[in-house]
Amino acid sequence: MNRRGRLRDHGPSVGRLPPGPLNAITDVPDVHVGHLTLLEGDAVRTGVTAILPHGGNVFRERVPAGLAVGNGYGKLAGGTQVQELGELETPLVLTNTLSVAAGLDGVIGWTLEQPGNEAVQSVNPVVGETNDGVLNDIRARVVRPEHVRAALAAARSGPVAEGAVGAGTGTVCFGWKGGIGTASRVVVTDAGAFTLGALVQSNFGGDLTVCGVPVWADLQPPPAAPDGSVMIVLATDAPLSDRNLTRVARRAFLGVGRTGGVMANGSGDYALAFSTAPGVRRVAGTPLLHTSELPNVALTSLFQAAVEATEEAILNSLFTAHTITGTGGRTVQALPVDRVLALTRPA
Amino acid sequence: MNRRGRLRDHGPSVGRLPPGPLNAITDVPDVHVGHLTLLEGDAVRTGVTAILPHGGNVFRERVPAGLAVGNGYGKLAGGTQVQELGELETPLVLTNTLSVAAGLDGVIGWTLEQPGNEAVQSVNPVVGETNDGVLNDIRARVVRPEHVRAALAAARSGPVAEGAVGAGTGTVCFGWKGGIGTASRVVVTDAGAFTLGALVQSNFGGDLTVCGVPVWADLQPPPAAPDGSVMIVLATDAPLSDRNLTRVARRAFLGVGRTGGVMANGSGDYALAFSTAPGVRRVAGTPLLHTSELPNVALTSLFQAAVEATEEAILNSLFTAHTITGTGGRTVQALPVDRVLALTRPA
Amino acid sequence: MNRRGRLRDHGPSVGRLPPGPLNAITDVPDVHVGHLTLLEGDAVRTGVTAILPHGGNVFRERVPAGLAVGNGYGKLAGGTQVQELGELETPLVLTNTLSVAAGLDGVIGWTLEQPGNEAVQSVNPVVGETNDGVLNDIRARVVRPEHVRAALAAARSGPVAEGAVGAGTGTVCFGWKGGIGTASRVVVTDAGAFTLGALVQSNFGGDLTVCGVPVWADLQPPPAAPDGSVMIVLATDAPLSDRNLTRVARRAFLGVGRTGGVMANGSGDYALAFSTAPGVRRVAGTPLLHTSELPNVALTSLFQAAVEATEEAILNSLFTAHTITGTGGRTVQALPVDRVLALTRPA
Amino acid sequence: MNRRGRLRDHGPSVGRLPPGPLNAITDVPDVHVGHLTLLEGDAVRTGVTAILPHGGNVFRERVPAGLAVGNGYGKLAGGTQVQELGELETPLVLTNTLSVAAGLDGVIGWTLEQPGNEAVQSVNPVVGETNDGVLNDIRARVVRPEHVRAALAAARSGPVAEGAVGAGTGTVCFGWKGGIGTASRVVVTDAGAFTLGALVQSNFGGDLTVCGVPVWADLQPPPAAPDGSVMIVLATDAPLSDRNLTRVARRAFLGVGRTGGVMANGSGDYALAFSTAPGVRRVAGTPLLHTSELPNVALTSLFQAAVEATEEAILNSLFTAHTITGTGGRTVQALPVDRVLALTRPA
Repeated sequence: MNRRGRLRDHGPSVGRLPPGPLNAITDVPDVHVGHLTLLEGDAVRTGVTAILPHGGNVFRERVPAGLAVGNGYGKLAGGTQVQELGELETPLVLTNTLSVAAGLDGVIGWTLEQPGNEAVQSVNPVVGETNDGVLNDIRARVVRPEHVRAALAAARSGPVAEGAVGAGTGTVCFGWKGGIGTASRVVVTDAGAFTLGALVQSNFGGDLTVCGVPVWADLQPPPAAPDGSVMIVLATDAPLSDRNLTRVARRAFLGVGRTGGVMANGSGDYALAFSTAPGVRRVAGTPLLHTSELPNVALTSLFQAAVEATEEAILNSLFTAHTITGTGGRTVQALPVDRVLALTRPA
Repeated sequence: MNRRGRLRDHGPSVGRLPPGPLNAITDVPDVHVGHLTLLEGDAVRTGVTAILPHGGNVFRERVPAGLAVGNGYGKLAGGTQVQELGELETPLVLTNTLSVAAGLDGVIGWTLEQPGNEAVQSVNPVVGETNDGVLNDIRARVVRPEHVRAALAAARSGPVAEGAVGAGTGTVCFGWKGGIGTASRVVVTDAGAFTLGALVQSNFGGDLTVCGVPVWADLQPPPAAPDGSVMIVLATDAPLSDRNLTRVARRAFLGVGRTGGVMANGSGDYALAFSTAPGVRRVAGTPLLHTSELPNVALTSLFQAAVEATEEAILNSLFTAHTITGTGGRTVQALPVDRVLALTRPA
Repeated sequence: MNRRGRLRDHGPSVGRLPPGPLNAITDVPDVHVGHLTLLEGDAVRTGVTAILPHGGNVFRERVPAGLAVGNGYGKLAGGTQVQELGELETPLVLTNTLSVAAGLDGVIGWTLEQPGNEAVQSVNPVVGETNDGVLNDIRARVVRPEHVRAALAAARSGPVAEGAVGAGTGTVCFGWKGGIGTASRVVVTDAGAFTLGALVQSNFGGDLTVCGVPVWADLQPPPAAPDGSVMIVLATDAPLSDRNLTRVARRAFLGVGRTGGVMANGSGDYALAFSTAPGVRRVAGTPLLHTSELPNVALTSLFQAAVEATEEAILNSLFTAHTITGTGGRTVQALPVDRVLALTRPA
Repeated sequence: MNRRGRLRDHGPSVGRLPPGPLNAITDVPDVHVGHLTLLEGDAVRTGVTAILPHGGNVFRERVPAGLAVGNGYGKLAGGTQVQELGELETPLVLTNTLSVAAGLDGVIGWTLEQPGNEAVQSVNPVVGETNDGVLNDIRARVVRPEHVRAALAAARSGPVAEGAVGAGTGTVCFGWKGGIGTASRVVVTDAGAFTLGALVQSNFGGDLTVCGVPVWADLQPPPAAPDGSVMIVLATDAPLSDRNLTRVARRAFLGVGRTGGVMANGSGDYALAFSTAPGVRRVAGTPLLHTSELPNVALTSLFQAAVEATEEAILNSLFTAHTITGTGGRTVQALPVDRVLALTRPA
């Protein structure tokens, strides 16, 4: 699916926890991902990526969720309600900075039309973004609500397309072509084994470090501002409270740090974590909510998983993204994987 | 301008600090307010209200700002960047819950087109909302970006239209017709006198209390859910840091509490405060920012002003709003001012 | 128990929800309160108040808890762990500003010695304070860990002593003698009836408002700085998550606002809420935590209870506290209850 | 001063920014550090470390400060007031988990006695801690306020003792002996060059990674729980607002992540940053505070410095700490530096 190969296809890996079968956010059962890629003319290099917490009616069967803000220079919509109620009531949508409105409109329309939602008058879409203005004519605002619906309709479980697709079509990471990346980890607790998956939209800078090796010093990449952003979505089937999901989300930024990012001033760095576990699912209309959740002491392995999966998802976004030429004739090169691999392998 | 009369037109007042000349947010020099009211057919009862921190290019001359979340069951967009950078880079726009997208699109378009912003690729509009679905066919989503631009274009200093106008066209407060209300206070500090103004979009419930009198018990209003929301905008010419503006914003909810609200579960209660003072204005391109601001110890009188102005702004929204009939043939009555006044005056 | 009489003993009441049998935090079953009052010589006017979430080993059977900071000019210890883990592992202790260390030492010693805690090496006491330096020679720091243990040992269910006792011995509120106050409310939800109780240590200022009547304007109280502080403890037997307890705690400040406070710059205003419900109790050593909790939509009545109980607890602290003369020969008068009542009753 | 040698003494370094002359927090002019080490009998292995923002009266000349909570399973005292007022009014003190009370008492006594503080009645000490119970008989609580005063009295500018000293005497990091470590970085901005220094008390776990190399996999260290804690103090002479200092503090955890930490469930991970710049110093009694501060856009290099200095300070704490035997006859080995260096150098 990703012809340039992911990190592990080339040998290296990150961390010590094992990945799930797909090494993707979709290793968490029933999580769906869909892309809509917009590549038009010389200047349109953008898109939409949608993540569905499950295949049912999310508005009626909500999942607990937590949000962490690494650096809030971003236009994420829907955050305060997630923090207040500790839940997601819609899919998540990622797009470009000036198209958050299209994201909202698309998700609202889609939600209002779902069977069972005929009386719904309030919807809280969560729409994240990064700025793809280096390659995309972002001021043209070409993303429409229909594109968002198309990404939602395209959402599937199974392998996830990575690199310059969907919301990652026009993004830049460490001066190289970034995009969508994903990874997962399996952890074992006293209550059984669980999977945590990450999906990122990588668009930030810093000193690129691959598997601990500061390759930036030798790569001499094209000069790049460290600003930019990264949107991180974490899904798990571990039964976690919203508070503990927020704690998991906060760890994602340690994974960003391990790739060489510092959450620069102009970066919009957000992580949102949700749990698909039936034991914490929220169904309306019940006077008491009966939940079964992991206690605080079980969290450390999930924190480890969040750090590792985020780091590897970012690296996957770089390894899989291909060179793109876009607006203004600017070209952003694909990561030179061979040179990177040479640097990471001791002679 | 407000034919039904504001609170003070009938005699009562709130608090002990004096109001400014207009008793409005526009007592803060250079603050502009504009409304766009949508009253169409039987079912459209909504609109847009825009507040401009000053008459210049806000994107290039930013004002420090702080945000407080009373209860985050709301769709406010733009909040995290305000919290991270401590500043506003656009006007504020209020509208209905399902029209935040139109608000974003309208403000982004307006900002991109302003002279001097030709190269801007990132805009953080702050768009607030309350749910006017009792009177307005909110699912129809009739608000368009053009409406937002019209509200921005209509913005003026001077007296502010209150009641069932702009973003308050279809809102309901304590079971009565709510809407837009405003008020102001003047405080004296060791560094001189300053004005603080509040503007609210009132759409919440509770036990209506007017000037301390729990009138709800005698009014027997139409049954109303306590849910709903209130958006509060606070402006001041006092030179305050973003941290102290955040502290001012937090006090607004005490004013809500004095009117009988409890920040119900389903309420989206947000307060955003900004300072127009030249001493804290942020202009791009300077290596050091020289600011002159009030020290922490001077804040108490501004806190008092925020509480009082918010309480009175809410009461003004109720006193000035007229009866509206809307979608589904539902009618929300204007507050019966005479009965309220009788209850607040001891025999 | 409180010879001067509480608010309701004189007729007036606050809000519309009914109080519990004792109108006290101890209406929540198994909550214990203990005071240690230090009145020595001319200058020692201070003390300790302890609140136990239940009569067992709190370190081993933790209760979910949430903390809200109204204005953080205070020395509360233990807050960040409550926010991170969402639980209390010790009793709560209130004392004076410069004696938080004694509070910590007392609670730690007491906890280490409890049967079953022989191997405990980490304890997170939550110790709150207000500044009683007007009447108490606070710099002398006379509170010792033994005093804290004495307050813990004295803790009982049943009626609570109010006014100038325990941690309220030397406090001042609205220029009058403040102290400890308590109140409770009963709410009915779809899952049954629950009680919420408040206990306050009142030491703040503002424009005293009793049952909505701004009595300050007529009372001509001794001049008083609005600074000061209020510590608020909320207990409930409603089964609430830590997130929803945090939301309940935030509402307490609306009760402060209704008495005339504005959370002044120099005020340390904190509210901590915990649930004693078995369905949310946390016992160590279980791989999965099975909980039964109220859903978000049930919270509004508990918010209402928090506002009302806090307001009435503050008024009770003022109504019950007697005149105290202390350090420097300064006297703080008891609230002139007859004059207050005359002002609150229309002729 | 540190006989085992610091990281750079052995060759390796971290990051790309240059360190200051001492590569220590004391490269920031006028910052003072003092240790008091308690090594008594078989079981006392603890101490106190004090950091003074400047050599004057901190209570009267306050420095802006920001606090970040990585994981709040810790007993840090004084945090909420720092967050509310954005300033430090005392030195910072680090000690063990059950001795925070001694820290508070020591700092309060010291502050009350300083010339000019005769009328002070409210003091907000900031006391951090980690749990040294593996090597220290922590339940004995041997730290006294006098020890805290001794650490304050010992505070000096110039080189800083590292390793098993002061508050790091009994701590454990990645299963090896941890302790106090420090490092610094110099950054150049449009407003000139500034220094940022870090000091850590390392007591946490994870997968030890040195300069990007996961040495843990080969070291086969003694089994260690990932729990534990790290206290991080960041000082800078860059003129930063409290908001931007909070942002700097948040980056410290990326440095923790780069050493292999994941902020485990049982870890108390806090970072506090302050600025010593005269342009942001806060002196009481002025009606307007005139400040000169760096704008938001200048922050990225300081973020980078915070990440790098924290990472290197942690590594320095490990490189310099010597083997300690303590309570229960337990021994924690010094990091085997030669083996680590062999792993970090490609053949």
